[in-house]
Amino acid sequence: MATNLSAEFSRYDQKLEFILRTSAQIFADKSYHATSMRDISRATGVSLAGLYHYCKSKDELLFLIQDNCFGRVLQRLEQRLSTEPDPGQKLRIFIDNHLAFFAANMAEMKVLSHEADSLAGELQNHVSAKKQKYTKRARKILSDLKRETKETSVDVTVATYALFGMMNWIYNWYDPNGKLNVEQLVDNVTRLFLQGFLGGLATRPPNFASEAVTESLSVWRLVHSDDSN
Amino acid sequence: MATNLSAEFSRYDQKLEFILRTSAQIFADKSYHATSMRDISRATGVSLAGLYHYCKSKDELLFLIQDNCFGRVLQRLEQRLSTEPDPGQKLRIFIDNHLAFFAANMAEMKVLSHEADSLAGELQNHVSAKKQKYTKRARKILSDLKRETKETSVDVTVATYALFGMMNWIYNWYDPNGKLNVEQLVDNVTRLFLQGFLGGLATRPPNFASEAVTESLSVWRLVHSDDSN
Repeated sequence: MATNLSAEFSRYDQKLEFILRTSAQIFADKSYHATSMRDISRATGVSLAGLYHYCKSKDELLFLIQDNCFGRVLQRLEQRLSTEPDPGQKLRIFIDNHLAFFAANMAEMKVLSHEADSLAGELQNHVSAKKQKYTKRARKILSDLKRETKETSVDVTVATYALFGMMNWIYNWYDPNGKLNVEQLVDNVTRLFLQGFLGGLATRPPNFASEAVTESLSVWRLVHSDDSN
Repeated sequence: MATNLSAEFSRYDQKLEFILRTSAQIFADKSYHATSMRDISRATGVSLAGLYHYCKSKDELLFLIQDNCFGRVLQRLEQRLSTEPDPGQKLRIFIDNHLAFFAANMAEMKVLSHEADSLAGELQNHVSAKKQKYTKRARKILSDLKRETKETSVDVTVATYALFGMMNWIYNWYDPNGKLNVEQLVDNVTRLFLQGFLGGLATRPPNFASEAVTESLSVWRLVHSDDSN
Protein backbone atom coordinates (compact mmCIF):
# COMPACT_ATOMS: atom_id res chain seq x y z
CA MET A 1 0.00 0.00 0.00
CA ALA A 2 2.78 2.41 1.00
CA THR A 3 4.69 1.46 -2.14
CA ASN A 4 1.66 2.14 -4.33
CA LEU A 5 1.16 5.54 -2.73
CA SER A 6 4.81 6.41 -3.26
CA ALA A 7 4.57 5.38 -6.87
CA GLU A 8 1.46 7.49 -7.35
CA PHE A 9 3.19 10.49 -5.81
CA SER A 10 4.86 11.24 -9.10
CA ARG A 11 7.62 13.63 -10.05
CA TYR A 12 4.90 16.06 -11.24
CA ASP A 13 3.11 15.92 -7.86
CA GLN A 14 6.38 16.40 -6.01
CA LYS A 15 7.25 19.49 -7.98
CA LEU A 16 3.73 20.91 -7.56
CA GLU A 17 3.91 20.36 -3.79
CA PHE A 18 7.29 22.03 -3.65
CA ILE A 19 5.86 25.04 -5.53
CA LEU A 20 2.80 25.20 -3.24
CA ARG A 21 4.86 24.88 -0.06
CA THR A 22 7.27 27.60 -1.19
CA SER A 23 4.39 29.86 -2.29
CA ALA A 24 2.68 29.47 1.10
CA GLN A 25 5.88 30.63 2.80
CA ILE A 26 6.18 33.69 0.53
CA PHE A 27 2.47 34.57 0.88
CA ALA A 28 2.88 34.32 4.67
CA ASP A 29 6.03 36.47 4.66
CA LYS A 30 4.98 39.30 2.35
CA SER A 31 1.23 38.79 1.75
CA TYR A 32 -0.55 37.29 -1.23
CA HIS A 33 -1.20 40.63 -2.92
CA ALA A 34 2.41 41.79 -2.70
CA THR A 35 3.72 38.52 -4.18
CA SER A 36 4.21 38.13 -7.93
CA MET A 37 4.60 34.96 -9.98
CA ARG A 38 8.13 36.26 -10.64
CA ASP A 39 8.82 36.13 -6.83
CA ILE A 40 7.65 32.51 -6.81
CA SER A 41 9.73 31.70 -9.87
CA ARG A 42 12.80 33.19 -8.16
CA ALA A 43 12.23 31.34 -4.87
CA THR A 44 11.50 27.96 -6.45
CA GLY A 45 14.06 28.16 -9.26
CA VAL A 46 11.25 27.20 -11.67
CA SER A 47 10.95 29.41 -14.75
CA LEU A 48 7.77 31.47 -15.25
CA ALA A 49 6.81 29.26 -18.21
CA GLY A 50 7.51 26.23 -16.01
CA LEU A 51 5.26 27.57 -13.24
CA TYR A 52 2.33 27.95 -15.63
CA HIS A 53 2.72 24.28 -16.46
CA TYR A 54 1.76 23.51 -12.82
CA CYS A 55 -0.90 26.16 -12.22
CA LYS A 56 -2.84 28.57 -14.39
CA SER A 57 -2.50 31.60 -12.09
CA LYS A 58 -1.51 32.95 -8.68
CA ASP A 59 -5.19 32.50 -7.71
CA GLU A 60 -4.91 28.80 -8.42
CA LEU A 61 -1.80 28.52 -6.22
CA LEU A 62 -3.69 30.15 -3.33
CA PHE A 63 -6.68 27.92 -3.98
CA LEU A 64 -4.58 24.74 -3.94
CA ILE A 65 -2.89 25.76 -0.65
CA GLN A 66 -6.23 26.50 1.04
CA ASP A 67 -8.00 23.48 -0.41
CA ASN A 68 -5.18 21.09 0.58
CA CYS A 69 -5.09 22.40 4.16
CA PHE A 70 -8.83 22.27 4.85
CA GLY A 71 -9.06 18.96 3.02
CA ARG A 72 -6.24 17.32 4.97
CA VAL A 73 -7.17 18.62 8.43
CA LEU A 74 -10.81 17.61 7.89
CA GLN A 75 -9.96 14.15 6.55
CA ARG A 76 -7.60 13.48 9.46
CA LEU A 77 -10.26 14.69 11.90
CA GLU A 78 -13.01 12.46 10.51
CA GLN A 79 -10.72 9.42 10.72
CA ARG A 80 -9.94 10.12 14.37
CA LEU A 81 -13.54 10.95 15.34
CA SER A 82 -15.07 7.92 13.63
CA THR A 83 -14.51 5.55 16.57
CA GLU A 84 -15.15 8.03 19.40
CA PRO A 85 -18.70 8.31 20.79
CA ASP A 86 -18.07 10.69 23.72
CA PRO A 87 -18.50 14.45 22.95
CA GLY A 88 -15.88 15.47 25.55
CA GLN A 89 -13.29 13.19 23.98
CA LYS A 90 -14.38 14.39 20.53
CA LEU A 91 -13.60 17.95 21.57
CA ARG A 92 -10.18 16.93 22.87
CA ILE A 93 -9.51 15.20 19.56
CA PHE A 94 -10.68 18.26 17.61
CA ILE A 95 -8.31 20.57 19.51
CA ASP A 96 -5.38 18.17 19.27
CA ASN A 97 -5.98 17.56 15.58
CA HIS A 98 -6.22 21.26 14.73
CA LEU A 99 -3.26 22.46 16.81
CA ALA A 100 -0.93 19.61 15.92
CA PHE A 101 -1.72 20.00 12.21
CA PHE A 102 -1.35 23.78 12.09
CA ALA A 103 1.68 23.91 14.39
CA ALA A 104 3.32 21.82 11.67
CA ASN A 105 1.97 24.15 8.97
CA MET A 106 2.29 27.66 10.43
CA ALA A 107 2.88 29.51 7.14
CA GLU A 108 -0.20 27.83 5.66
CA MET A 109 -2.20 28.77 8.79
CA LYS A 110 -1.30 32.44 8.36
CA VAL A 111 -2.26 32.27 4.69
CA LEU A 112 -5.63 30.64 5.49
CA SER A 113 -6.31 33.35 8.03
CA HIS A 114 -5.12 36.43 6.12
CA GLU A 115 -6.20 35.43 2.63
CA ALA A 116 -9.64 34.02 3.46
CA ASP A 117 -11.24 36.64 1.19
CA SER A 118 -8.57 36.84 -1.51
CA LEU A 119 -10.21 34.37 -3.86
CA ALA A 120 -13.46 34.92 -5.75
CA GLY A 121 -16.12 32.95 -7.62
CA GLU A 122 -15.95 29.18 -7.90
CA LEU A 123 -12.56 28.81 -6.20
CA GLN A 124 -13.76 30.83 -3.20
CA ASN A 125 -17.03 28.86 -3.01
CA HIS A 126 -15.20 25.55 -3.04
CA VAL A 127 -12.84 26.50 -0.19
CA SER A 128 -15.63 28.17 1.78
CA ALA A 129 -17.73 25.02 1.64
CA LYS A 130 -14.91 22.96 3.18
CA LYS A 131 -14.24 25.63 5.81
CA GLN A 132 -17.93 25.78 6.72
CA LYS A 133 -18.09 22.01 7.00
CA TYR A 134 -15.11 22.11 9.35
CA THR A 135 -16.58 24.94 11.47
CA LYS A 136 -19.93 23.14 11.70
CA ARG A 137 -18.15 20.01 12.91
CA ALA A 138 -16.68 21.98 15.84
CA ARG A 139 -20.01 23.64 16.58
CA LYS A 140 -21.86 20.32 16.56
CA ILE A 141 -19.40 18.83 19.07
CA LEU A 142 -19.89 21.84 21.38
CA SER A 143 -23.69 21.69 21.03
CA ASP A 144 -23.72 17.97 21.84
CA LEU A 145 -21.47 18.57 24.82
CA LYS A 146 -23.68 21.38 26.10
CA ARG A 147 -26.83 19.27 25.73
CA GLU A 148 -25.28 16.20 27.29
CA THR A 149 -23.64 17.83 30.31
CA LYS A 150 -26.08 20.71 30.87
CA GLU A 151 -23.08 22.34 32.56
CA THR A 152 -22.45 25.43 30.49
CA SER A 153 -24.30 28.67 30.01
CA VAL A 154 -21.76 29.92 27.46
CA ASP A 155 -23.25 30.73 24.06
CA VAL A 156 -22.25 28.03 21.54
CA THR A 157 -21.49 30.50 18.74
CA VAL A 158 -19.17 32.52 20.98
CA ALA A 159 -17.55 29.32 22.26
CA THR A 160 -16.99 27.96 18.73
CA TYR A 161 -15.27 31.09 17.43
CA ALA A 162 -13.42 31.68 20.72
CA LEU A 163 -11.97 28.19 20.29
CA PHE A 164 -10.89 28.88 16.71
CA GLY A 165 -9.49 32.25 17.81
CA MET A 166 -7.41 30.69 20.61
CA MET A 167 -6.08 28.06 18.25
CA ASN A 168 -5.57 30.08 15.08
CA TRP A 169 -3.81 32.95 16.85
CA ILE A 170 -0.77 30.73 17.43
CA TYR A 171 0.82 31.81 14.14
CA ASN A 172 1.36 35.21 15.84
CA TRP A 173 3.38 33.94 18.76
CA TYR A 174 4.04 30.22 18.92
CA ASP A 175 7.41 28.68 18.03
CA PRO A 176 7.15 24.88 17.62
CA ASN A 177 10.91 24.69 18.28
CA GLY A 178 10.70 26.87 21.43
CA LYS A 179 10.48 25.79 25.05
CA LEU A 180 6.80 24.79 24.84
CA ASN A 181 6.39 21.72 22.64
CA VAL A 182 3.24 20.97 20.65
CA GLU A 183 1.92 18.44 23.19
CA GLN A 184 2.24 21.04 25.97
CA LEU A 185 0.50 23.63 23.79
CA VAL A 186 -2.35 21.22 23.07
CA ASP A 187 -2.60 20.27 26.73
CA ASN A 188 -2.79 23.89 27.92
CA VAL A 189 -5.30 25.03 25.30
CA THR A 190 -7.47 21.96 25.91
CA ARG A 191 -7.56 22.52 29.68
CA LEU A 192 -8.20 26.25 29.32
CA PHE A 193 -11.04 25.78 26.86
CA LEU A 194 -12.67 22.66 28.34
CA GLN A 195 -12.64 24.05 31.86
CA GLY A 196 -13.96 27.37 30.53
CA PHE A 197 -16.77 25.67 28.65
CA LEU A 198 -17.61 22.94 31.16
CA GLY A 199 -16.28 24.10 34.51
CA GLY A 200 -15.53 21.33 37.01
CA LEU A 201 -16.52 18.54 34.61
CA ALA A 202 -13.40 18.96 32.48
CA THR A 203 -11.14 16.77 34.55
CA ARG A 204 -10.17 13.92 32.21
CA PRO A 205 -6.66 14.53 30.85
CA PRO A 206 -6.01 14.30 27.12
CA ASN A 207 -4.26 11.15 26.02
CA PHE A 208 -3.00 11.22 22.47
CA ALA A 209 0.46 12.76 22.69
CA SER A 210 2.19 9.65 21.36
CA GLU A 211 0.09 9.63 18.18
CA ALA A 212 0.93 13.25 17.42
CA VAL A 213 4.65 12.64 17.87
CA THR A 214 5.00 9.70 15.53
CA GLU A 215 2.97 11.04 12.61
CA SER A 216 4.25 13.54 10.04
CA LEU A 217 1.75 16.38 10.08
CA SER A 218 3.02 18.66 7.35
CA VAL A 219 0.33 19.21 4.74
CA TRP A 220 3.07 18.58 2.18
CA ARG A 221 4.77 15.22 1.79
CA LEU A 222 8.28 16.38 1.02
CA VAL A 223 9.09 18.97 3.68
CA HIS A 224 12.41 17.44 4.68
CA SER A 225 13.62 16.41 1.24
CA ASP A 226 15.77 18.46 -1.09
CA ASP A 227 13.77 18.44 -4.30
CA SER A 228 14.14 22.05 -5.24
CA ASN A 229 15.14 21.51 -8.84
CA MET B 1 -12.49 71.07 29.59
CA ALA B 2 -14.78 69.48 27.02
CA THR B 3 -15.08 72.84 25.26
CA ASN B 4 -11.29 73.20 25.12
CA LEU B 5 -10.91 69.72 23.66
CA SER B 6 -13.55 70.46 21.02
CA ALA B 7 -11.78 73.66 20.10
CA GLU B 8 -8.47 71.82 19.78
CA PHE B 9 -10.06 69.22 17.51
CA SER B 10 -9.55 71.48 14.52
CA ARG B 11 -10.75 71.26 10.95
CA TYR B 12 -7.31 69.81 10.07
CA ASP B 13 -7.65 67.06 12.70
CA GLN B 14 -11.17 66.27 11.56
CA LYS B 15 -10.08 65.82 7.98
CA LEU B 16 -7.08 63.68 9.01
CA GLU B 17 -9.34 61.46 11.11
CA PHE B 18 -11.76 61.10 8.23
CA ILE B 19 -8.86 60.06 5.95
CA LEU B 20 -7.53 57.57 8.54
CA ARG B 21 -10.94 56.05 9.21
CA THR B 22 -11.64 55.64 5.49
CA SER B 23 -8.16 54.20 4.88
CA ALA B 24 -8.64 51.65 7.67
CA GLN B 25 -11.85 50.48 6.00
CA ILE B 26 -10.16 50.12 2.60
CA PHE B 27 -7.10 48.35 4.07
CA ALA B 28 -9.47 45.96 5.87
CA ASP B 29 -11.51 45.33 2.70
CA LYS B 30 -8.75 44.80 0.15
CA SER B 31 -5.49 44.63 2.19
CA TYR B 32 -2.84 47.27 2.74
CA HIS B 33 -0.60 46.08 -0.08
CA ALA B 34 -3.38 46.03 -2.68
CA THR B 35 -4.47 49.60 -1.78
CA SER B 36 -3.01 52.61 -3.57
CA MET B 37 -3.04 56.26 -2.52
CA ARG B 38 -5.25 56.73 -5.58
CA ASP B 39 -7.84 54.33 -4.04
CA ILE B 40 -7.80 56.42 -0.87
CA SER B 41 -8.09 59.62 -2.85
CA ARG B 42 -11.11 58.21 -4.68
CA ALA B 43 -12.84 56.98 -1.49
CA THR B 44 -12.25 60.16 0.50
CA GLY B 45 -12.80 62.64 -2.31
CA VAL B 46 -9.50 64.28 -1.33
CA SER B 47 -7.09 64.90 -4.22
CA LEU B 48 -3.73 63.08 -4.25
CA ALA B 49 -1.95 66.38 -3.60
CA GLY B 50 -4.41 67.07 -0.79
CA LEU B 51 -3.72 63.64 0.78
CA TYR B 52 0.02 64.34 0.91
CA HIS B 53 -0.78 67.47 2.89
CA TYR B 54 -2.07 65.17 5.67
CA CYS B 55 0.44 62.33 5.47
CA LYS B 56 3.73 61.76 3.71
CA SER B 57 3.00 58.21 2.54
CA LYS B 58 0.75 55.17 2.71
CA ASP B 59 3.14 53.87 5.41
CA GLU B 60 2.36 56.90 7.54
CA LEU B 61 -1.39 56.30 7.17
CA LEU B 62 -0.96 52.73 8.40
CA PHE B 63 1.27 53.91 11.22
CA LEU B 64 -1.25 56.54 12.37
CA ILE B 65 -4.10 53.99 12.35
CA GLN B 66 -2.09 51.47 14.39
CA ASP B 67 -0.63 54.07 16.74
CA ASN B 68 -4.03 55.66 17.42
CA CYS B 69 -5.66 52.29 18.18
CA PHE B 70 -3.01 50.97 20.56
CA GLY B 71 -2.68 54.41 22.14
CA ARG B 72 -6.40 54.82 22.75
CA VAL B 73 -7.15 51.31 23.99
CA LEU B 74 -4.15 51.45 26.35
CA GLN B 75 -4.99 54.92 27.69
CA ARG B 76 -8.60 53.92 28.32
CA LEU B 77 -7.43 50.71 30.05
CA GLU B 78 -5.00 52.50 32.38
CA GLN B 79 -7.72 54.94 33.41
CA ARG B 80 -10.09 52.12 34.25
CA LEU B 81 -7.47 49.98 36.04
CA SER B 82 -6.07 52.82 38.15
CA THR B 83 -8.66 52.48 40.93
CA GLU B 84 -9.01 48.67 40.89
CA PRO B 85 -6.75 46.63 43.22
CA ASP B 86 -8.23 43.14 42.62
CA PRO B 87 -6.54 41.06 39.83
CA GLY B 88 -9.78 39.21 39.00
CA GLN B 89 -11.63 42.47 38.49
CA LYS B 90 -8.66 43.83 36.55
CA LEU B 91 -8.95 40.92 34.14
CA ARG B 92 -12.68 41.55 33.71
CA ILE B 93 -11.92 45.19 32.97
CA PHE B 94 -9.18 44.22 30.49
CA ILE B 95 -11.54 41.94 28.53
CA ASP B 96 -14.40 44.45 28.59
CA ASN B 97 -12.12 47.31 27.55
CA HIS B 98 -10.56 45.36 24.66
CA LEU B 99 -13.76 43.84 23.26
CA ALA B 100 -15.91 46.94 23.63
CA PHE B 101 -13.22 49.08 21.97
CA PHE B 102 -12.53 46.74 19.06
CA ALA B 103 -16.17 45.79 18.50
CA ALA B 104 -16.59 49.51 17.80
CA ASN B 105 -13.48 49.50 15.56
CA MET B 106 -13.65 46.23 13.63
CA ALA B 107 -11.95 47.45 10.44
CA GLU B 108 -9.07 48.82 12.52
CA MET B 109 -8.87 45.52 14.41
CA LYS B 110 -8.48 43.59 11.15
CA VAL B 111 -5.80 46.05 10.00
CA LEU B 112 -3.88 45.73 13.30
CA SER B 113 -3.98 41.97 12.98
CA HIS B 114 -3.18 41.55 9.26
CA GLU B 115 -0.72 44.40 8.86
CA ALA B 116 1.30 43.90 12.05
CA ASP B 117 4.45 43.36 9.94
CA SER B 118 3.73 45.77 7.10
CA LEU B 119 5.69 48.70 8.58
CA ALA B 120 9.45 48.83 8.98
CA GLY B 121 12.12 50.79 10.85
CA GLU B 122 11.20 53.54 13.28
CA LEU B 123 7.44 53.44 12.59
CA GLN B 124 7.36 49.69 13.25
CA ASN B 125 9.43 50.04 16.43
CA HIS B 126 7.13 52.74 17.78
CA VAL B 127 3.96 50.68 17.24
CA SER B 128 5.61 47.48 18.48
CA ALA B 129 6.60 49.18 21.74
CA LYS B 130 2.98 50.17 22.44
CA LYS B 131 1.73 46.72 21.49
CA GLN B 132 4.30 45.05 23.76
CA LYS B 133 3.34 47.34 26.64
CA TYR B 134 -0.28 46.36 26.12
CA THR B 135 0.50 42.62 25.92
CA LYS B 136 2.67 42.82 29.05
CA ARG B 137 -0.20 44.50 30.90
CA ALA B 138 -2.44 41.49 30.16
CA ARG B 139 0.30 39.03 31.08
CA LYS B 140 0.99 40.82 34.37
CA ILE B 141 -2.69 40.65 35.34
CA LEU B 142 -2.74 36.90 34.60
CA SER B 143 0.50 36.29 36.52
CA ASP B 144 -0.84 38.20 39.55
CA LEU B 145 -4.08 36.27 39.38
CA LYS B 146 -2.25 32.95 39.17
CA ARG B 147 0.00 33.83 42.12
CA GLU B 148 -2.85 35.16 44.24
CA THR B 149 -5.36 32.39 43.67
CA LYS B 150 -2.96 29.45 43.20
CA GLU B 151 -5.88 27.93 41.28
CA THR B 152 -4.55 27.50 37.79
CA SER B 153 -1.99 25.20 36.25
CA VAL B 154 -2.41 26.78 32.81
CA ASP B 155 0.79 28.26 31.38
CA VAL B 156 0.62 32.09 31.55
CA THR B 157 2.08 32.59 28.06
CA VAL B 158 -0.48 30.25 26.50
CA ALA B 159 -3.27 31.88 28.53
CA THR B 160 -2.22 35.41 27.49
CA TYR B 161 -2.17 34.66 23.77
CA ALA B 162 -5.25 32.43 23.97
CA LEU B 163 -7.08 35.41 25.46
CA PHE B 164 -5.90 37.74 22.68
CA GLY B 165 -6.79 35.08 20.12
CA MET B 166 -10.34 34.65 21.46
CA MET B 167 -10.85 38.40 21.48
CA ASN B 168 -9.10 39.40 18.26
CA TRP B 169 -10.74 36.68 16.19
CA ILE B 170 -14.07 38.51 16.43
CA TYR B 171 -13.38 40.49 13.25
CA ASN B 172 -13.87 37.18 11.41
CA TRP B 173 -17.36 36.47 12.63
CA TYR B 174 -18.91 39.01 15.00
CA ASP B 175 -21.56 41.48 13.88
CA PRO B 176 -22.08 44.23 16.50
CA ASN B 177 -25.52 44.83 14.97
CA GLY B 178 -26.47 41.13 15.07
CA LYS B 179 -28.44 39.24 17.69
CA LEU B 180 -25.60 39.15 20.22
CA ASN B 181 -24.88 42.64 21.53
CA VAL B 182 -21.45 43.74 22.75
CA GLU B 183 -22.34 43.32 26.42
CA GLN B 184 -23.41 39.71 25.77
CA LEU B 185 -20.21 39.08 23.81
CA VAL B 186 -18.10 40.49 26.66
CA ASP B 187 -20.05 38.50 29.23
CA ASN B 188 -19.62 35.19 27.35
CA VAL B 189 -15.92 35.64 26.60
CA THR B 190 -15.23 36.73 30.19
CA ARG B 191 -17.00 33.69 31.65
CA LEU B 192 -15.36 31.30 29.20
CA PHE B 193 -11.86 32.64 29.83
CA LEU B 194 -12.08 33.27 33.59
CA GLN B 195 -13.61 29.88 34.28
CA GLY B 196 -11.02 28.30 32.00
CA PHE B 197 -8.15 30.02 33.77
CA LEU B 198 -9.47 29.89 37.34
CA GLY B 199 -12.01 27.09 37.43
CA GLY B 200 -14.60 27.33 40.18
CA LEU B 201 -13.24 30.64 41.51
CA ALA B 202 -14.55 32.62 38.58
CA THR B 203 -18.05 33.18 39.94
CA ARG B 204 -18.30 36.95 40.32
CA PRO B 205 -20.31 38.36 37.40
CA PRO B 206 -18.94 41.29 35.40
CA ASN B 207 -20.55 44.60 36.21
CA PHE B 208 -19.72 47.36 33.78
CA ALA B 209 -22.25 47.03 31.01
CA SER B 210 -23.74 50.46 31.66
CA GLU B 211 -20.38 52.19 31.23
CA ALA B 212 -19.77 50.50 27.91
CA VAL B 213 -23.20 51.48 26.59
CA THR B 214 -23.00 55.20 27.35
CA GLU B 215 -19.49 55.87 26.05
CA SER B 216 -18.57 56.35 22.39
CA LEU B 217 -15.84 53.85 21.70
CA SER B 218 -14.85 54.56 18.12
CA VAL B 219 -11.17 55.34 17.88
CA TRP B 220 -12.21 58.23 15.66
CA ARG B 221 -14.23 61.15 16.94
CA LEU B 222 -16.38 61.80 13.89
CA VAL B 223 -17.78 58.41 12.97
CA HIS B 224 -21.41 59.54 12.71
CA SER B 225 -20.85 62.96 11.16
CA ASP B 226 -20.95 63.70 7.48
CA ASP B 227 -17.63 65.46 6.90
CA SER B 228 -16.62 63.71 3.76
CA ASN B 229 -15.68 66.87 1.86
